[in-house]
Amino acid sequence: MKVAIQGELGSFSHEAAMQFAPSAVIVPCERCADVFDALESGSVQAAAIAIENSLAGSVAENYDLLLKRDAFIARELLLRIRHNLIALPETKLTDVRRVFSHPVALEQCRKLFRSHRAMRAIPFYDTAGSVRHAVSERLDDAAAIAPKRAAAQYGGKILLADIEDNRQNFTRFLLVGKRAKKLRGANKTSLAFALKNVPGALFKALSVFALRDISLSKIESRPIVGRPWEYVFFADINRGHDEAAQNAIHHLEEIAEFVKVLGVYPAAVQPNSGKSETQK
Amino acid sequence: MKVAIQGELGSFSHEAAMQFAPSAVIVPCERCADVFDALESGSVQAAAIAIENSLAGSVAENYDLLLKRDAFIARELLLRIRHNLIALPETKLTDVRRVFSHPVALEQCRKLFRSHRAMRAIPFYDTAGSVRHAVSERLDDAAAIAPKRAAAQYGGKILLADIEDNRQNFTRFLLVGKRAKKLRGANKTSLAFALKNVPGALFKALSVFALRDISLSKIESRPIVGRPWEYVFFADINRGHDEAAQNAIHHLEEIAEFVKVLGVYPAAVQPNSGKSETQK
Repeated sequence: MKVAIQGELGSFSHEAAMQFAPSAVIVPCERCADVFDALESGSVQAAAIAIENSLAGSVAENYDLLLKRDAFIARELLLRIRHNLIALPETKLTDVRRVFSHPVALEQCRKLFRSHRAMRAIPFYDTAGSVRHAVSERLDDAAAIAPKRAAAQYGGKILLADIEDNRQNFTRFLLVGKRAKKLRGANKTSLAFALKNVPGALFKALSVFALRDISLSKIESRPIVGRPWEYVFFADINRGHDEAAQNAIHHLEEIAEFVKVLGVYPAAVQPNSGKSETQK
Repeated sequence: MKVAIQGELGSFSHEAAMQFAPSAVIVPCERCADVFDALESGSVQAAAIAIENSLAGSVAENYDLLLKRDAFIARELLLRIRHNLIALPETKLTDVRRVFSHPVALEQCRKLFRSHRAMRAIPFYDTAGSVRHAVSERLDDAAAIAPKRAAAQYGGKILLADIEDNRQNFTRFLLVGKRAKKLRGANKTSLAFALKNVPGALFKALSVFALRDISLSKIESRPIVGRPWEYVFFADINRGHDEAAQNAIHHLEEIAEFVKVLGVYPAAVQPNSGKSETQK
């Protein structure tokens, strides 16, 4: 099976894809839209996409693409995000002057820069890509912040492990396929819907769940392109294919301009936030 | 009056700050957090911050800062976002091979790249900063996508005006001060609140507005740091200091873990999306 990811090999998306499908061939794509293109064209059978980080929030672009494209969520996964400082094998910690990484990763490792004043943070387009850059360009005064997997992928050395400021750092990934599937143990449903722009519209929409004791685990709003200050809502409910959920969705269809079921799948188990094996 | 902005002089934030306070001295800051630092330290009297774009969505970082910092919204403004292709005065359109800009601006001008195949989009940290870069480095094969104001600021020439793909492109800016003020004509209130993680919590929270016929113009959710998959909600209601709004907020306080009033201010007028003067 081929699985598309956004970003380079060795990234957190690569890690997530391997957990979803351990024997998959990973197809790295430059942009999120390219991932969905690969899926729609049939050149990959699935995609592993990041949808939300517990500190940085939603990945807005992937929400928009789930709505626009022919794609359905098959599974979800919560990945503990552990950042590492990775450099050329011969580079010592005291050599490091420049640290490359994605801006979100740099922002999540501010303690590193406070305790190592000689290091300067330099924004880069990708976490794993910043390791590849430092190693392939043989930058002996540089390091990169990236997952462990990136060190192995590009022949870098881990100078410091688990350097993220906050250990409650998880990213929710989705395995997305081209067709909707009914999975055993599915107990979570993701929906997108737009409401008429009238007072109380969202309250009424949420009533379809509240009146049936169906709880929401997440709600997100995204702008509707071409209609300034109107929104599409994305909601995750803690129910699968049961009657109450079906009735709630039917009820929502009465109220909403449209409803799209993005997927019905088993809810992921929350991993713990403890230290990694290497630090025990 | 000194007004802090995130980004360089000549940016859309600079434009917004000048519309808020035409005689203000603008203080550019590198990061959003620096803007709030300047405000809290008293080195500026106000800040002009982007909170939402009608195509790209919310500026998450500024939502988080409005909650965390001692700052209150005094006014809002809707700015029509017009992108321009700006280069050295001697550069011709056919010379341009590289186009620098902020990734969001590049994404909003995809038609330009489809109709000018020789141009390659290169992500840069700031729109106005990309004009400064092209001009100060005398890059004669380069251009930048930025507001008109950036051309004047750095001595660039506008090669193409109004190159944004979608004219329904507006950014909502907020003028933020250190202290809450009661303004005449205030008819909009921005709130932040956190809910207990129980089924139906958001539905109950929205009932405090719906039951009083108070409409919401926006709702946004952001993660609570350290509590994965729990959220703070940001809501704008179309009411000022009246009794119904006061009662609704009081009612919300009964339900919520906390409520913070981020500001009570006059709602902005929606500008039209027509062509600029220069194209008539």
